[in-house]
Amino acid sequence: MKITDVNLTPIAMKDPPLRNIHGVHQPYALRTVLQVHTDEGLTGLGETYGDLAILNALRKVAPRLTGLDVLDLNGLERIIRETLGASAGPATHGLVGEASDEKTISTVLSAFEIPCWDLQGKALGRPVVDLLGGKVRDAVPYSGYLFFKPAAHTPLPDYPTDAWGEAMDAEGIVAQARAMVDGWGFKSLKLKGGVLPPQDEADAILALRDEFPNHPLRLDPNAGWTVESSIAVGKKLDGVLEYLEDPTGGIDGMAAVARSVSMPLATNMCVTEFAHVKPAVLVDAVQVILSDHHFWGGLRRSRELAGICRTFGIGLSMHSNSHLGISLAAMTHLAGATPELTYDCDTHYPYLVEDVVQKGVLSFKDGAVKVPDGPGLGVELDLDALARLAEQYEKCGFDTRDDITPMRAVQPDWDPVIPRW
Amino acid sequence: MKITDVNLTPIAMKDPPLRNIHGVHQPYALRTVLQVHTDEGLTGLGETYGDLAILNALRKVAPRLTGLDVLDLNGLERIIRETLGASAGPATHGLVGEASDEKTISTVLSAFEIPCWDLQGKALGRPVVDLLGGKVRDAVPYSGYLFFKPAAHTPLPDYPTDAWGEAMDAEGIVAQARAMVDGWGFKSLKLKGGVLPPQDEADAILALRDEFPNHPLRLDPNAGWTVESSIAVGKKLDGVLEYLEDPTGGIDGMAAVARSVSMPLATNMCVTEFAHVKPAVLVDAVQVILSDHHFWGGLRRSRELAGICRTFGIGLSMHSNSHLGISLAAMTHLAGATPELTYDCDTHYPYLVEDVVQKGVLSFKDGAVKVPDGPGLGVELDLDALARLAEQYEKCGFDTRDDITPMRAVQPDWDPVIPRW
Ligand SMILES: [Mg+2]
Ligand SMILES: [Mg+2]
Repeated sequence: MKITDVNLTPIAMKDPPLRNIHGVHQPYALRTVLQVHTDEGLTGLGETYGDLAILNALRKVAPRLTGLDVLDLNGLERIIRETLGASAGPATHGLVGEASDEKTISTVLSAFEIPCWDLQGKALGRPVVDLLGGKVRDAVPYSGYLFFKPAAHTPLPDYPTDAWGEAMDAEGIVAQARAMVDGWGFKSLKLKGGVLPPQDEADAILALRDEFPNHPLRLDPNAGWTVESSIAVGKKLDGVLEYLEDPTGGIDGMAAVARSVSMPLATNMCVTEFAHVKPAVLVDAVQVILSDHHFWGGLRRSRELAGICRTFGIGLSMHSNSHLGISLAAMTHLAGATPELTYDCDTHYPYLVEDVVQKGVLSFKDGAVKVPDGPGLGVELDLDALARLAEQYEKCGFDTRDDITPMRAVQPDWDPVIPRW
Repeated sequence: MKITDVNLTPIAMKDPPLRNIHGVHQPYALRTVLQVHTDEGLTGLGETYGDLAILNALRKVAPRLTGLDVLDLNGLERIIRETLGASAGPATHGLVGEASDEKTISTVLSAFEIPCWDLQGKALGRPVVDLLGGKVRDAVPYSGYLFFKPAAHTPLPDYPTDAWGEAMDAEGIVAQARAMVDGWGFKSLKLKGGVLPPQDEADAILALRDEFPNHPLRLDPNAGWTVESSIAVGKKLDGVLEYLEDPTGGIDGMAAVARSVSMPLATNMCVTEFAHVKPAVLVDAVQVILSDHHFWGGLRRSRELAGICRTFGIGLSMHSNSHLGISLAAMTHLAGATPELTYDCDTHYPYLVEDVVQKGVLSFKDGAVKVPDGPGLGVELDLDALARLAEQYEKCGFDTRDDITPMRAVQPDWDPVIPRW
């Protein structure tokens, strides 16, 4: 089955004002939806970042894929490397670590690889999880992802208020967690930190521990702290966190923290490419890697990463950026076939109010998503929704994620310095 | 497509008296041929060791596989672990490193995984190389594998003399290499060492270098040397070997040699399970790993090993024991889809005089085997040959590889001590 044509549709989806170390989410999150058509009339779906730099790279590669067999993932990588060359250019944002040529290539590879898996499954009449070696779990547990947030974006005409309300202190976070747990059934909770001073975020974690004594808890300040602050929080939360995620930046900084705190350190910032793994292993910088098929190079590379984690005794969890149902399906198939993944995965899905996939397949029960059993990814596009979000992209007024500008709209002297504390 | 039945056929194939550190090959090499039948009428082929301990493990697992979907490789591993339990028992021979419960499990997993890949390919009408991500090379280059050997086994009634003649010194090895290169087209050469004193084997390598100035050369004494002897040979062959394979035993010994010689050290003895990788990486014990799908857990695990080697800057080559065409096909599909494999693979195939696969698909041209393009492994059984070799197994008089006993038949005081020099 050979590729005949590729459609790339950048979309903008409404997104709540979620806070992080850089600032605050824009009112729209950008994604690119991929439709890969074949000579057998089947179409494969994919989803990746919507930032212009990635979109431009996808646009360069797409016309070169005509004639490629959908099983030929080695050929796909070859074409991408030939097309983008050594100067692929940085294209990813700082919340997933440093951008690099290689990360851009991995991101583009993943973007096109997912539709190929979807097509392989559709051709064979089997879900992607089966092509990855078969289910090791029937449903994939996700963590409830908690964010400090104001009640609304800076006032925007016609922009609806989100359902989550304000959460700018421990009390607000506990209320948000209660809504997550009661509404979605999550069995573990993750707090995005780097917003309040570290001791206040540690207090929010302790408040969560009081309210949810049996939920594993995580805290992720996106490298917003110094080594010293990280160690202080780590000691305060001794026995409370299942892992502390990217408290500080860099392999050496993480290694220094790791030597002084009791809990495992997790990362989706200092080990985000295969080239980072060996330096991290040699100094035992991280004990959990948050995989993300979007920038690790797709499902095959994510399986390799899982093998590396198993081999080196490193835990494996899964990272999320704001995403649609296509990515949720891909994440769920991958996690469904990955025995090494022993932590609940992250997802922003509860914050999504407009999806491009048809309803019915993806739903949360007890915090988990059942691995879809239809062919391929098991999800189908809602073409009306896709058109609406594509129109929204044209009107949203930006083409690249930027958490700093909207923060400065409310706080003109905002300085996204890292580490802040 | 579900498994309905499994046939396990132990066979014995004639094998020349090839010498090594343990002694000498018996007149017959043992293998097990697997035929895995399915509810769709397709049969998948596989091949592994014939030693009784492995055969017994295969026999325990086989009846448990009824009903297993051939895509469900995670399910296959689960069944094998459940069946063999923590006490799988050691079952592999010492020339591939220490035996262990885990290596037995990996070996059994591989044995059944290969027929599953064959079946997946047959069902889809595609060669296994395509299921592994697609060809990165059209033909897989192998090295010419040179052995010290007497002209014949200790006299056996009705046993034919092999075509290779005696080779017990440098001159004999050069003549053997000439026959390999002229007859098969090999572009690189490997000498099995551990037979003569190290300096004599180094002289044989230098004689090969004189005769074949452009052929990469390797020497593998199977851990027969002390660290000191290994360093002495390494210095003598500075600039001559592409790698020195298992000069001495153990990760610490290899690391000590690696610190003192210029060429990469390769292994199929001290890093033969995933559990060995981290300790080896931490002391930079080996610079090349010889993968072998038979004991690394099959094609999926071999792909994981390739990812580890790429990630940690370790070279990747491929190990061989005496084998039939089924394994040659599997090795060739795997190597055909593995970009990380940058050394010519090892094979004993030139020494094989009776194969169980039908002629025509597997042949050497310029030292390389074209990746079969038929569905699955692309090879079919010659049932008459299989029956003949199965009968030979019943008559050969042993059920487990043993290189020591036939050595003592010619040299009663033979002591297979390691290290010898
Ligand atoms: Mg993170
Ligand atoms: Mg060897």
